[in-house]
Amino acid sequence: KNVDNGTDKTHQTVVVYDCRIDGKDATERFVDIGDLDINDFLEVVSKEFAIPSNDTFVLTTTDRKELDFDRYEEIKKGNDKETLYLLQSEDQILPSATLERINFLPHYDTLIQSGMYEYYASEGQKALPYAFAELIDNALSATSGNTGVRMIDIRLLFNESLGKPAVVIIDNGCGMTAKQLNNWAVYRLSKFTRASSTLSSDHAEYVRPDPVPRSINSDISFFGVGGKQAVFYIGQSARMITKPVGIPDVHELVISKEEFERKEKNKEDIYAGFIRNRKVGDSSHVTSDEERFLHGIIQEELGKQSFTALVVTGIRQDHIVFLKQDFQLWTRELAHMYHYYIHGIHGNNMKESYRSSDCVSNIDIQISLLEKFPKIPRMVNLRQIAEDMQTLYINASSDTFEFKAYVDPDGIVEGILRYHPFLYDKETYPEDRCAIPASDEDDDGAVHNQARGKRPIFECFWNGRLIPYTTVSEFDWCSPPKKAAPVPMECYSRFSGVLFTNDRFQVSTNKLTFMDLELQLKSKETFFTRIVNGQEQRVTIQKEFNQWLKTCHEKLDKQVNFKGFKGMITRTDV
Amino acid sequence: KNVDNGTDKTHQTVVVYDCRIDGKDATERFVDIGDLDINDFLEVVSKEFAIPSNDTFVLTTTDRKELDFDRYEEIKKGNDKETLYLLQSEDQILPSATLERINFLPHYDTLIQSGMYEYYASEGQKALPYAFAELIDNALSATSGNTGVRMIDIRLLFNESLGKPAVVIIDNGCGMTAKQLNNWAVYRLSKFTRASSTLSSDHAEYVRPDPVPRSINSDISFFGVGGKQAVFYIGQSARMITKPVGIPDVHELVISKEEFERKEKNKEDIYAGFIRNRKVGDSSHVTSDEERFLHGIIQEELGKQSFTALVVTGIRQDHIVFLKQDFQLWTRELAHMYHYYIHGIHGNNMKESYRSSDCVSNIDIQISLLEKFPKIPRMVNLRQIAEDMQTLYINASSDTFEFKAYVDPDGIVEGILRYHPFLYDKETYPEDRCAIPASDEDDDGAVHNQARGKRPIFECFWNGRLIPYTTVSEFDWCSPPKKAAPVPMECYSRFSGVLFTNDRFQVSTNKLTFMDLELQLKSKETFFTRIVNGQEQRVTIQKEFNQWLKTCHEKLDKQVNFKGFKGMITRTDV
Ligand SMILES: Nc1ncnc2c1ncn2[C@@H]1O[C@H](COP(=O)(O)OP(=O)(O)OP(=O)(O)O)[C@@H](O)[C@H]1O
Ligand SMILES: Nc1ncnc2c1ncn2[C@@H]1O[C@H](COP(=O)(O)OP(=O)(O)OP(=O)(O)O)[C@@H](O)[C@H]1O
Ligand SMILES: [Mg+2]
Ligand SMILES: [Mg+2]
Repeated sequence: KNVDNGTDKTHQTVVVYDCRIDGKDATERFVDIGDLDINDFLEVVSKEFAIPSNDTFVLTTTDRKELDFDRYEEIKKGNDKETLYLLQSEDQILPSATLERINFLPHYDTLIQSGMYEYYASEGQKALPYAFAELIDNALSATSGNTGVRMIDIRLLFNESLGKPAVVIIDNGCGMTAKQLNNWAVYRLSKFTRASSTLSSDHAEYVRPDPVPRSINSDISFFGVGGKQAVFYIGQSARMITKPVGIPDVHELVISKEEFERKEKNKEDIYAGFIRNRKVGDSSHVTSDEERFLHGIIQEELGKQSFTALVVTGIRQDHIVFLKQDFQLWTRELAHMYHYYIHGIHGNNMKESYRSSDCVSNIDIQISLLEKFPKIPRMVNLRQIAEDMQTLYINASSDTFEFKAYVDPDGIVEGILRYHPFLYDKETYPEDRCAIPASDEDDDGAVHNQARGKRPIFECFWNGRLIPYTTVSEFDWCSPPKKAAPVPMECYSRFSGVLFTNDRFQVSTNKLTFMDLELQLKSKETFFTRIVNGQEQRVTIQKEFNQWLKTCHEKLDKQVNFKGFKGMITRTDV
Repeated sequence: KNVDNGTDKTHQTVVVYDCRIDGKDATERFVDIGDLDINDFLEVVSKEFAIPSNDTFVLTTTDRKELDFDRYEEIKKGNDKETLYLLQSEDQILPSATLERINFLPHYDTLIQSGMYEYYASEGQKALPYAFAELIDNALSATSGNTGVRMIDIRLLFNESLGKPAVVIIDNGCGMTAKQLNNWAVYRLSKFTRASSTLSSDHAEYVRPDPVPRSINSDISFFGVGGKQAVFYIGQSARMITKPVGIPDVHELVISKEEFERKEKNKEDIYAGFIRNRKVGDSSHVTSDEERFLHGIIQEELGKQSFTALVVTGIRQDHIVFLKQDFQLWTRELAHMYHYYIHGIHGNNMKESYRSSDCVSNIDIQISLLEKFPKIPRMVNLRQIAEDMQTLYINASSDTFEFKAYVDPDGIVEGILRYHPFLYDKETYPEDRCAIPASDEDDDGAVHNQARGKRPIFECFWNGRLIPYTTVSEFDWCSPPKKAAPVPMECYSRFSGVLFTNDRFQVSTNKLTFMDLELQLKSKETFFTRIVNGQEQRVTIQKEFNQWLKTCHEKLDKQVNFKGFKGMITRTDV
């Protein structure tokens, strides 16, 4: 086992079991084969086991293949402590069991392939925003303790005159110590398992944040995989540059596919590497012309108390195309996912009265796309985006119905229903502008008349962040009743909804789906209550809901029916 | 770094960087701290760097915390080669960059937690059959070279009088050499990456199997994760017992959560372990009373040329409940997934003419559930199950339409449509007996009159094995046309379908979904052709399909309409 990049390569040992004598336990000896050739080695073995020179024996690997020149050389070059048998014949039965030392280190594809089959999406390219979301999640966690503005700056450097294409995510969060940076690279080391790690400066036991409205708690790290999956889904190399408060040094770590392949080829330890500790602003180690954009990024370190900059390179070509061509699409998807982080708990309500309120968020998620001259840079703060679905729902609604669900034992879900009235000649329930045009032409006429159509009512947020592939279609108490309904049936298709769950509901590692949210919510133990001005109501939710819907219909729906055609009038007086 | 279970614990070294002098590059020294206490160590450092006794200096970790007694002891006990700084003051700027050695081994949760958030399913417990499927996949691959019967024997040992609950999967496949067994335990080592590994007896380059009808090629291993994910989703410990052809020894390897935790606690190498090589039938190492069922399993080894037995223990209690209570449900689901493996390429056609044909499969997948007396054992061969959906579709159909799709560059999809005619007074399209009763009460009347309803047409098989969460709703050419249809609209809801893809279509690691099957099939480059008696037809698929549907309708639909009520007659003559 060579620890320091191959400096300690001479001490290859093998384990030899003497299995010749039946009825006698196999004895085990370690033999150092550092600079022996195969003949020397056979001699050493003969001596070691005191084999008379006229005795015949055979030396095999554990798959009973005789040790020949090639096999011996391979073992000598290898990293493993090989086990060999000393036998009377190749197919002799073992007199007693032998123990063969093995290593079963996860292959490095664990890191570099992980995202590939995780961010699958039947829509193909649509998966990329979800990889970006993992990096935004990390930046949100890191900036959760900030007192001032929380800045998350995503830059797509696709300007070849600056070097090869790169995706850079910079945040002004707490940064990482060298130990924490080391831990960042450890696949599946989550904040929960980390508590029991012995790495000194990262000893911090995980403290679950206090409950906050709608669970917008920035506590979105869970599995210890997201960052790695995302990076290697986006590209082939990640350079993490970070500085924590109170330490004068910047820590830098590169993990890349290329490095893994190099280490494998040279039989070096796959998961060993170096963190570079250096002074702020020092980019003297950047010598590659392809990465010259790093000088600028490193210059920006000056004067910052703490920060983290993640630089992804080796970007997949199809991603570059998508990121450029569908800029609006994917930035809108991100604005949707983080809607309540960037707009505050009331969301992006564009009415004057709300905009001046103090619920405004201090989270700036800024995305810029830099291409080669003469293309002009594109830049957007997610907060400026007004076409994401949540913004549409909020601003097309005229009344809301808030509720809360308690799920055994400590799951809490806050919910909102929004009423989109019928106005004059049309439904105001917003259309899904991002949706792929419906492919099933055989839609039933009946459904076309309904505002929401077949769409589920609820989108679902976990710790404030959208889990995009899970929706909840409805609850008992807000579905059209089988018997007498208090309002016309169409009204039941005039509301949209949102659910906000706390961390007691499990999501899949790629954060694309909940494990069993709907199942839990529909359990008999689950208890719903209406919330009015923050107060839980004593009356049953069904009754409250019916009441609300009736009021909405009577007060808000304004149906104008032109009955019977009377002929045309030409008004010459206007 | 201690290789052999802590035998080599004395040589802990630290790296000290002398960073005191600005303008001079930091110099690096290795110091062996084996049996030094902190004061000895400080002395050694002073000497090593020739520090005059009246000079003040401070020794810190890289997070600039002064090395005190506790930190020193922790480093001494640790596994890592810690990096220390020799500084003038704790916040001195580094004169030059330092390189800190780190290891970033994936956490063992990579193996034991992987399945947990992979086999998620909105239906909750329904995920367990998919974990079993991974183990069946492996057994199918292993037995693909068998000349005689291929036996896959799944035993649920839930009889406490035999020991603790266990799930045992035994196959009579090729088995594994010790090296292959070692590789089994390596997370993410796939058959593709394995080719480049240097482990001698597992050198075999992957050879892609020749095309076979419907891609029933038993080549269902892809990512190097399935077996591990499945085992640790089912339980907490896996014992793999295997014997390859031509080697007289049995190889045995245990990986378990408990062992990982023990190694972590004792700071041993997490991914090091031992394979036990022993003679056939020797269970002398099994001493735990809880595992006494192992004696019986090991006795069965006698006389077998090769085999693999996987024993999972530490079974989750909720899984035990599910496996017992829903025995019929999950065995039916497995019969569905492997339908074409267990029944042959024509599937489970129960008409006499087919049953005597030579297309019968030699794959026996047998499941037995053993509970404590007086409960009687349950046992089923998946081939006996006649209620799985594929069996229902096949036997309720009166005609079929076969086709093939070529997807750029070498994706091939074979497809079948089956016509389920209207007979006398009802549709014969089979109902989904496994389906959860529809929850949306607001189904449109129109749909209720249709045989298939909202269900998608196609179920999708990959290398012959069902990918359960991906369906394809329809293709252009088999959807009801917008203009004049050649047959009544209802006919378009009277067919079910199956797609068989080859390995050129990607599936997610949990094999629950295709990545982009539908997208690829609907690409403009994709070319469809009808197959009649194995021959591709020259005419366009649309025309062929219309023709087929018309014939089906005219020949097979037998609609009896009672028109106008004429009054009742009581027949006294019968
Ligand atoms: N921008 C950042 N600033 C500070 N620390 C970070 C940042 N990004 C990652 N980290 C650290 O690295 C760790 C690993 O990140 P990663 O995203 O891989 O997993 P995770 O966030 O812990 O879990 P999940 O799988 O849910 O994303 C984080 O827990 C955090 O401690
Ligand atoms: N029953 C078995 N008989 C023989 N070899 C087996 C058996 N089960 C597993 N193996 C070996 O162990 C390897 C790892 O199995 P595992 O299921 O973890 O991954 P995989 O099958 O390679 O890929 P996937 O993630 O697609 O399942 C297999 O490739 C195969 O070589
Ligand atoms: Mg994360
Ligand atoms: Mg497998």
